[in-house]
Amino acid sequence: MSGPLTFGLDLGGTKCLGIAWVDGEVVAQHRAATDTAGPGDVIELLAEVAAELRSQAGPPVAVGVGAPGLVTRDGNLALAPNLPGVEHLALEEGLTAALGVPVMVENDAATAAWAEFSCGAAEEAESMLAVTLGTGVGGGIVLDGELQRGAHGFAAEVGHIIVRKGGRQCVCGKRGCWEVYASGTALGILSYERLGVTGEEVTASAAGGDLGALAVIGEYAAEVALGLGSLIEVLDPETVVIGGGLVQAGEALLEPVRSALPGFVYSWDYRRPTPVVPAQLGERSGAIGGALLAAQRI
Amino acid sequence: MSGPLTFGLDLGGTKCLGIAWVDGEVVAQHRAATDTAGPGDVIELLAEVAAELRSQAGPPVAVGVGAPGLVTRDGNLALAPNLPGVEHLALEEGLTAALGVPVMVENDAATAAWAEFSCGAAEEAESMLAVTLGTGVGGGIVLDGELQRGAHGFAAEVGHIIVRKGGRQCVCGKRGCWEVYASGTALGILSYERLGVTGEEVTASAAGGDLGALAVIGEYAAEVALGLGSLIEVLDPETVVIGGGLVQAGEALLEPVRSALPGFVYSWDYRRPTPVVPAQLGERSGAIGGALLAAQRI
Repeated sequence: MSGPLTFGLDLGGTKCLGIAWVDGEVVAQHRAATDTAGPGDVIELLAEVAAELRSQAGPPVAVGVGAPGLVTRDGNLALAPNLPGVEHLALEEGLTAALGVPVMVENDAATAAWAEFSCGAAEEAESMLAVTLGTGVGGGIVLDGELQRGAHGFAAEVGHIIVRKGGRQCVCGKRGCWEVYASGTALGILSYERLGVTGEEVTASAAGGDLGALAVIGEYAAEVALGLGSLIEVLDPETVVIGGGLVQAGEALLEPVRSALPGFVYSWDYRRPTPVVPAQLGERSGAIGGALLAAQRI
Repeated sequence: MSGPLTFGLDLGGTKCLGIAWVDGEVVAQHRAATDTAGPGDVIELLAEVAAELRSQAGPPVAVGVGAPGLVTRDGNLALAPNLPGVEHLALEEGLTAALGVPVMVENDAATAAWAEFSCGAAEEAESMLAVTLGTGVGGGIVLDGELQRGAHGFAAEVGHIIVRKGGRQCVCGKRGCWEVYASGTALGILSYERLGVTGEEVTASAAGGDLGALAVIGEYAAEVALGLGSLIEVLDPETVVIGGGLVQAGEALLEPVRSALPGFVYSWDYRRPTPVVPAQLGERSGAIGGALLAAQRI
């Protein structure tokens, strides 16, 4: 006897990754390029990936989607900076009609967080802050075992807390957002400014002990720790999970973040240290989280 | 037939205010000066206030305490900057022994927030961020109807999110905390720097239309809005409640905060505006919240 079959679809700016999920396992997988010219294409792309998964694994009882941007509580993709022309797209409604099964849509960082909480790096925890360091900085918050969506669905936009009043311009329109200093993009800029190399080269050199690279990583890690500290002051999570492209840098990045963190948390000396651990599920986390949420909500 | 009688005790740096609570009403009240020389005195003071309430209203089934500082989940007052000599005080355990009834201890901003959520400014909401602007900046967070305590009890230390990396020194030891710019103390400093008057004089003059005072309030309100914006990005609460001494300034302060807020929330144009409303329960909110939590937890 097996549990329900659900699909998880992770819609990204360059690719869409879909998985079929049953009994805690990925039983099929499909990937397609995100080559969309508008809102209609997004639904068509997701439906195609679902159709391919269906041909491999059979019909799902529900589908969960992780979408890149602001997702309202009723599954409307209000704004998606990485999908040109997509704004106020009724994705949950449109995809439900296209697939004929219940669909739920959530922010992609939130679905990834839910996967890490359910069967990844924070499996043992009751509360968690997940932060993805990539092109931008995304987040997911789980408190008392519940994924926090917020009154409008816009909670956990952690990349847009302001860490420098009047600081550098953020893509969101504000100034001084944490994302401007702590994203993978920010590490790339810093690496080029300081050493004339890429962020990848700096993390590789730092892992090999290069002092110049270690200094750049230290400077960047302090920016990461500063924002994490503020979020720990607000949420006091049991665990912090770091995901996104930068997690490949491993301990060369995480250890400097851990070292800097106590200086940014007021209550640090009065409690157990908050663990900062790497995400475990890799690039499939967003899709797995979608499948898990779909299974939970039907 | 009447409901259970509980006491709420709000322990402050200068006074301790106690109330007796039954069926949603304050049925007795007592106030004593906080004149403590150490940890033992704190428990003695609280026991005296409870004894006075008991003589007026009868024996309670439970007692809830709001304490000023870092309170662990098991009711240990780990740090209390406004109570000299108090550190790692097992307040819940000590007061339970002294009173012979169940006692629960919570941070005072959290008990005040719980009162506003249960029977005050956010009574209709399901989630809320409460911020108290006083000597410092305190906070309370309610999500899905639950007061958020955090893994260690240290959640909602919202005054200590960093809004300016490397900014002015905060009493907590960090630099650039929101509290340094958004507390009532900060308004006092700004008022003196700009106009040579007190914060109270500036808010009074601003209410009367004085342009110089309005400019100072505008500058201060932008600092308040900046931090609120970051917290809204993280929590997306249904309502924001502003309490503390500064709430007496009323709309002269709140309206400039509301005006500045949209510029600090990325998702503002894609959803309903988050209401920013004044606390309703005044100086008794911390004690009422203690009584409510005590009633809820027994």
